Amino acid sequence: MNKIKVGIIGGTGYTGVELLRLLVTHPSIDVALITSRAEAGREVVDLFPSLRGFTDLCFSPPDTELLTACDLVFSATPNGIAMTHARALTAAGTKLIDLAADFRIRDIATWEKWYGMQHACPELVAQAVYGLPEMNRQEITNAMIVANPGCYPTATTLGLLPLVQAGLIRSNNLIVDAKSGVTGAGRGANVASLFSEVADSFRAYGVAGHRHHPEITQNIQSVSKSTVDLTFVPHLVPMLRGIHATIYADLIDLDKSLEDVHHMVSSFYADEAFVDVMPLGSHPDTRSVKTSNMCRIALHKAGGSGKLVILSVIDNLTKGAAGQAVQNMNIMLGLDETLGLMSPAVMP
Amino acid sequence: MNKIKVGIIGGTGYTGVELLRLLVTHPSIDVALITSRAEAGREVVDLFPSLRGFTDLCFSPPDTELLTACDLVFSATPNGIAMTHARALTAAGTKLIDLAADFRIRDIATWEKWYGMQHACPELVAQAVYGLPEMNRQEITNAMIVANPGCYPTATTLGLLPLVQAGLIRSNNLIVDAKSGVTGAGRGANVASLFSEVADSFRAYGVAGHRHHPEITQNIQSVSKSTVDLTFVPHLVPMLRGIHATIYADLIDLDKSLEDVHHMVSSFYADEAFVDVMPLGSHPDTRSVKTSNMCRIALHKAGGSGKLVILSVIDNLTKGAAGQAVQNMNIMLGLDETLGLMSPAVMP
Amino acid sequence: MNKIKVGIIGGTGYTGVELLRLLVTHPSIDVALITSRAEAGREVVDLFPSLRGFTDLCFSPPDTELLTACDLVFSATPNGIAMTHARALTAAGTKLIDLAADFRIRDIATWEKWYGMQHACPELVAQAVYGLPEMNRQEITNAMIVANPGCYPTATTLGLLPLVQAGLIRSNNLIVDAKSGVTGAGRGANVASLFSEVADSFRAYGVAGHRHHPEITQNIQSVSKSTVDLTFVPHLVPMLRGIHATIYADLIDLDKSLEDVHHMVSSFYADEAFVDVMPLGSHPDTRSVKTSNMCRIALHKAGGSGKLVILSVIDNLTKGAAGQAVQNMNIMLGLDETLGLMSPAVMP
Amino acid sequence: MNKIKVGIIGGTGYTGVELLRLLVTHPSIDVALITSRAEAGREVVDLFPSLRGFTDLCFSPPDTELLTACDLVFSATPNGIAMTHARALTAAGTKLIDLAADFRIRDIATWEKWYGMQHACPELVAQAVYGLPEMNRQEITNAMIVANPGCYPTATTLGLLPLVQAGLIRSNNLIVDAKSGVTGAGRGANVASLFSEVADSFRAYGVAGHRHHPEITQNIQSVSKSTVDLTFVPHLVPMLRGIHATIYADLIDLDKSLEDVHHMVSSFYADEAFVDVMPLGSHPDTRSVKTSNMCRIALHKAGGSGKLVILSVIDNLTKGAAGQAVQNMNIMLGLDETLGLMSPAVMP
Repeated sequence: MNKIKVGIIGGTGYTGVELLRLLVTHPSIDVALITSRAEAGREVVDLFPSLRGFTDLCFSPPDTELLTACDLVFSATPNGIAMTHARALTAAGTKLIDLAADFRIRDIATWEKWYGMQHACPELVAQAVYGLPEMNRQEITNAMIVANPGCYPTATTLGLLPLVQAGLIRSNNLIVDAKSGVTGAGRGANVASLFSEVADSFRAYGVAGHRHHPEITQNIQSVSKSTVDLTFVPHLVPMLRGIHATIYADLIDLDKSLEDVHHMVSSFYADEAFVDVMPLGSHPDTRSVKTSNMCRIALHKAGGSGKLVILSVIDNLTKGAAGQAVQNMNIMLGLDETLGLMSPAVMP
Repeated sequence: MNKIKVGIIGGTGYTGVELLRLLVTHPSIDVALITSRAEAGREVVDLFPSLRGFTDLCFSPPDTELLTACDLVFSATPNGIAMTHARALTAAGTKLIDLAADFRIRDIATWEKWYGMQHACPELVAQAVYGLPEMNRQEITNAMIVANPGCYPTATTLGLLPLVQAGLIRSNNLIVDAKSGVTGAGRGANVASLFSEVADSFRAYGVAGHRHHPEITQNIQSVSKSTVDLTFVPHLVPMLRGIHATIYADLIDLDKSLEDVHHMVSSFYADEAFVDVMPLGSHPDTRSVKTSNMCRIALHKAGGSGKLVILSVIDNLTKGAAGQAVQNMNIMLGLDETLGLMSPAVMP
Repeated sequence: MNKIKVGIIGGTGYTGVELLRLLVTHPSIDVALITSRAEAGREVVDLFPSLRGFTDLCFSPPDTELLTACDLVFSATPNGIAMTHARALTAAGTKLIDLAADFRIRDIATWEKWYGMQHACPELVAQAVYGLPEMNRQEITNAMIVANPGCYPTATTLGLLPLVQAGLIRSNNLIVDAKSGVTGAGRGANVASLFSEVADSFRAYGVAGHRHHPEITQNIQSVSKSTVDLTFVPHLVPMLRGIHATIYADLIDLDKSLEDVHHMVSSFYADEAFVDVMPLGSHPDTRSVKTSNMCRIALHKAGGSGKLVILSVIDNLTKGAAGQAVQNMNIMLGLDETLGLMSPAVMP
Repeated sequence: MNKIKVGIIGGTGYTGVELLRLLVTHPSIDVALITSRAEAGREVVDLFPSLRGFTDLCFSPPDTELLTACDLVFSATPNGIAMTHARALTAAGTKLIDLAADFRIRDIATWEKWYGMQHACPELVAQAVYGLPEMNRQEITNAMIVANPGCYPTATTLGLLPLVQAGLIRSNNLIVDAKSGVTGAGRGANVASLFSEVADSFRAYGVAGHRHHPEITQNIQSVSKSTVDLTFVPHLVPMLRGIHATIYADLIDLDKSLEDVHHMVSSFYADEAFVDVMPLGSHPDTRSVKTSNMCRIALHKAGGSGKLVILSVIDNLTKGAAGQAVQNMNIMLGLDETLGLMSPAVMP
């Protein structure tokens, strides 16, 4: 059987190596090309020895002709790069999954404000699909461009989606206290991400404003009948992988039992391969999804206040980035959605 | 000069060794005795080599006569032990600082419900003083029994105290999302605290109810004019020391500027040696207080919602336990409150 | 196709959950049974949520009839248990792979000295095969009982095997300075393995003697023409998984070039799927094999002395335990040796 | 009493902040000046909030006039900077302690080979004193320039010094397998020191040659009657602070008892405040010296070979850098050698 040819733009970060980890054993895919200006010519396994024996690719400069020869291209670069490739790729009939933020925000002005640059192809934003399969599966099937969601927005949106859509909770007093492992900060050389700066410590960041806030709000607003007012505070955890979103919401009907809420959310996700609503009383730890494409969700009523507390965990590099990108790829290519993604989480 | 004799009941846990770390270099104190049934006869430095050269004490069985010969006794045992010593100690004129919870909750029924046992000396609870110096300094001065606050309640109460007391925030929609290092779980042998269970992972626990919830509520209610409704969710961080409380509150006057709020809180704590209100824009990390008795607080208005977000960090073993106990001891003995406590945090 | 039925004795430790992680996606295997006296009746996924969706097994008491109905049984218990099952299993024609030490040491007196108990079936030790496929592949093919090697012995033996066998190094001045992640200490509740005891620290242990020393010596002696004198010092690293053996050896021919040595070792392992001799100049990190069944080896001449330094890394739970057990199972059952084991290491 | 004025050149690294941590509470010292070109004008506490309340210094550009106005200057810069200040400082009568390597190697050619630059003041190398007080206390007393030892050389030399000097071990088969926490790699922004690169992993580095090898050899050779041949292999441990040297040596008299060796080493260090020879059977962990100026040493005969194994641990930032620098300062200034350094290690 002929394998489908995919390319990766910008493969030297953690998202890139995670994509490779998933793709080199994917039964239907051939990674034809992986680009990096800085590492062009170097063997991939020289940078990532974990892949020795699984690939003999070298990094190459980003060459439009080679990229458009692929059926599908992942862009795993910093923000602002994918949009410079999008026109050429789509014109050639090559599908694009952007793991950065270039196509996530529908309102161009909002995007330009938060990302501090001019958008290179605003007309393509309108036709791009936000790649959260549990929300937009049908549209992803036919998309030429998929905006792969951010890690915090994935965990948060999956936690809130059924509750907001069913009108069970108030949209104007939502609080998302989110925590991320350090790989979320990327593989760039900067002091703030040094082991000696983050190990054995914990802190919040970006309290006054974070780029994932408008993305989360856009998602929740799209399924809410009333105006969304949501507080989002991210924190940095001294661990490699994992997002833990602790979400606080007010039930509209205070007498609604937790069992009823749990039943509704479980039913909503009953057919989803990658969302696991855990039994009542559970406290999912991030390691329960480490290296897997699963999102695990637990529901509680908090002691004292009776406020609804939703716990939602993912691996930021897998369901929060590369795994979800492969899931989107499977959908876009008409493959089984779970292909190459059904490994249990690594524990411990 | 004759040093003041103190004793420690139950010195084999992390609170015990932290007390010793602070007391062996305290200029006015002589640790006369440290008890442990399980380790009786063993040299302290055999268990804690970090103290080699600083003490030649051996653990001894808890002997009432030796304890009442001390001027002051710390109880660093699990809950339910200090209350069995309290009558004998106070009768003999020996002051008691309990680092566990036996004297923290004024309502005996509430205490018995949360701690699952009958209280051994309810009449002494009434005369015990809750040992948060920034709240109760005057009462501590004259106390025979001080209930040393819990770690989460210390960080949370210091973050909320000036705001609630000044009536700046609504008391009925408070959310405390708190994170703790693993030493908070103690030195007991249990699977859930193994390195291999908590390293490189993150999780919430006790969402449906935690013993520190009634303690926090009691503190906040005591300074609030309206009814307190507070949601408290603790989490476990893969680090040794540190509490980070992220507190969400609604300003009553939405137009109140963050600068005004910051000025008020800064003024409130201006004379406190162990509360540091940081400049606007700060995100204190827990390592900025590691091993020190300091609480650092930062104030933000969250992006989007404008909700007030208070970040409050302490070292759970120092300001959250042994350091605060030494601070209370200094006050109770008429010493300079900061004696033995003025070392900078260890970074990194 | 009918799958082959396997059972697991003692599935509640880290070796047990790693076995399950590998077996639930193994294409030819059905895990029919997993035993635990302490957890009998409990769902496996209740203890290990990482496996939710991959198994609906419950732990059951160890029942001889059910175990002997399996084609092959893994014993993932503490030392001294597998030997009590071995006669019944082999009598019934059920193959046994013991992941503990009951069948590793050929000399019964030595075994009884180091493991502090009487051996229950010394006659079966003689017919058991030491399950290091790179050394004993042929014998494993026909074995009824395989003694799965210890984690330190695996890393060390693979590092030394070709050099000793070829007579390139002196056997009487070997030094193995080995380092292990904390999962190697097991999932038992004990203070020494608490996060708060091992995080952010490093130490040696067992310098005066460790059970893996006679096992390593037995391996090396079996391929050496002269008497082996080997110093072995293990250390504990604050990480979850991984063994790093740093081995110091004297070349017999001091003029032998490092290139020649490297070429010889590379040739020796050229056909091995799970041993990777890295390019000259490499320093393999343990994460380069995390969750994989690979052993990576690098060779150096040390600065100054010119002593040969061999670096050998494995994942203690995979190639050092469960992965190697699956490799042995594949060989014993006549399956492709790599079946179910060809995933890249997880990085980071 | 007038305090003694000291300056710090290059105070933005981990050695700089550790120096400040020790000096701001030192009873006889006033830090008059701390320099950084990159951070000139910025408040020290803005970079290091752990010091809030302890200093109001700002970083300033390195001004020779201000530096020579100090009684003593620490240079905590990268290699190659202190030597450019040395002539001016000594000419002005200002003592210099260099925490980098500019004055450690007596042979200029060797230094220039390993450090890849030309030495700026070779004539001052000859008069500089190597600042290991346990070896050179008398010379340090009168030194104008002290070369503060490297972290690995400190741990290793203290472990070997009494044994080599007494002629108890062979000098030509010494092996030092050393492990360091990540702060040893400094606070520079580089990918290899990112949390996501070093956490949950372990590796060797520099096996073919490391700058501390000639320094260690110089130390050992200076007390040995025969030629030193020493193998040195450093490793990186995922922890913040700490050096653990595991040293392998052959006793010249194989019948010498471990008790005798232990007694000799204990006697050698009996009067040293900062070397602790632990009881037989000990395995010092690095946390037993965390934040303290102590070196702890344990002695073993290894199982099997009977080789002498010396375990030596220090905190790389304290006894391995800033603490030892303060110890040297105390000696050079005629103060009590232990002043400002007598705090117990932080545990855990």
